[in-house]
Amino acid sequence: MLARRFETATPRGTGLSVRLDARAGRLTGPTSALARGFAQGNLVILPKADADDFLRFCQRNPKPCPLLGVTEPGSPHLPALGIDLDLRSDLPRYRVWRDGELVGEPTDIAALWRDDLVGFVIGCSFSFEEALLADGLEIRNVSAGVNVSMFRTSLDCAPAGRFHGPLVVSMRPYRPADAIRAIQITARFPAAHGAPVHIGFPEMIGIADLGRPDYGDAVAVHDDELPVFWACGVTPQAAIAAARLPFAITHAPGSMLVTDLLSSRMAL
Amino acid sequence: MLARRFETATPRGTGLSVRLDARAGRLTGPTSALARGFAQGNLVILPKADADDFLRFCQRNPKPCPLLGVTEPGSPHLPALGIDLDLRSDLPRYRVWRDGELVGEPTDIAALWRDDLVGFVIGCSFSFEEALLADGLEIRNVSAGVNVSMFRTSLDCAPAGRFHGPLVVSMRPYRPADAIRAIQITARFPAAHGAPVHIGFPEMIGIADLGRPDYGDAVAVHDDELPVFWACGVTPQAAIAAARLPFAITHAPGSMLVTDLLSSRMAL
Repeated sequence: MLARRFETATPRGTGLSVRLDARAGRLTGPTSALARGFAQGNLVILPKADADDFLRFCQRNPKPCPLLGVTEPGSPHLPALGIDLDLRSDLPRYRVWRDGELVGEPTDIAALWRDDLVGFVIGCSFSFEEALLADGLEIRNVSAGVNVSMFRTSLDCAPAGRFHGPLVVSMRPYRPADAIRAIQITARFPAAHGAPVHIGFPEMIGIADLGRPDYGDAVAVHDDELPVFWACGVTPQAAIAAARLPFAITHAPGSMLVTDLLSSRMAL
Repeated sequence: MLARRFETATPRGTGLSVRLDARAGRLTGPTSALARGFAQGNLVILPKADADDFLRFCQRNPKPCPLLGVTEPGSPHLPALGIDLDLRSDLPRYRVWRDGELVGEPTDIAALWRDDLVGFVIGCSFSFEEALLADGLEIRNVSAGVNVSMFRTSLDCAPAGRFHGPLVVSMRPYRPADAIRAIQITARFPAAHGAPVHIGFPEMIGIADLGRPDYGDAVAVHDDELPVFWACGVTPQAAIAAARLPFAITHAPGSMLVTDLLSSRMAL
């Protein structure tokens, strides 16, 4: 039964096979569309001194920062998220930050690992996007072959220690009946940002022009469509950048951690 | 445990006490705000010859016509919906229709009962409105002390036999974040019309002017609010009127059947 689900759900590998490809250097780029059916996650690695504040930041802002797992200090493993999972090698590509500046994009961080590092894995909208597509709903940026539109809003996250910043949202346009359906579906995925945070009036959340996203690419929004806004995993990255930490490691954009968790199992 | 729930949920009687008041003639008007916590239902009574078509109409249009119960032909009882429930006497007021015309509004229909009559009880938005209020959301028409705005749409119901007609919707305005929350909440109540059918663009469903509802009263819709539209229990009444049946009985507007079902137990 389990074996059969894995077969049908994974035309392009399993969570484990993608991690092993990344570890061996056979995969060094984006993970989207790989290991379909398996939940992917954003990665944040911080020294223990900052990790406690960041954990409280995530706790206070669960829509942009749904925590799938947190390592023991010094451990790169998260057995609850994947067999043999090693955060030092199992993502295709990383970003290394020093004093808030990007200093490298290695494919392995074993040489940078320290006994005081804590890894955070944060849920990702890929999980609910699969559910939207399975329900027959379009995802405009997927149809257009571009990245999702993301915007910094005028809504502030609840701060914690040195972490603060705006809520960043992703936007997907839908006709009204499909917007309702998309709300119903994504509400079942709190571990992947959950229900939208806004619908309909971008200016109410500080977005002046849907054609000029702060991250990602613009997509068409037709006259009979409502823009629907979800909390976005770029939010914690913006908070980390704003904090100008002495040292941090994140995943490189699009190169996520692929877990052994089935996205459908994350649904309420 | 059960007794305690009844106590807290029913500052204004129970389903049974309201039905007994109606039966005794102590209650002859609207049931809104009575027996809070107990689900109320729309009533339709038809001769068996029409009842089969109407049952298929309800089955094909579950959002406007969520069936809570259907009697055996000739029986006025629905024990699954209430102890000692008698459809001939337990509603405060009825409407009697002949050849599509309203011919009377009695408080008891025992003298009209026939061996071939079938009673239908259809879920009502009161059940989800209680959940919206409990969640801290406003219901504009409740705040304003008027009836909800209802509109005939350009969306057709799926016909069945002689029954056909437009989908009728109720409208409640919400700011975007509250609209999302209202969708999440009402989606849990498929037996009370469930998730909305439309949000945002009234003209897309054939509504020219929100200020001129086809039934009920107009309410203010502010610039920062989206109109949200739910399928409405007036839909089957409109289909019955359009069918110009030789004989039918319905509840009088607002004078519903109060059941023993707890609304919260109807939620997914």
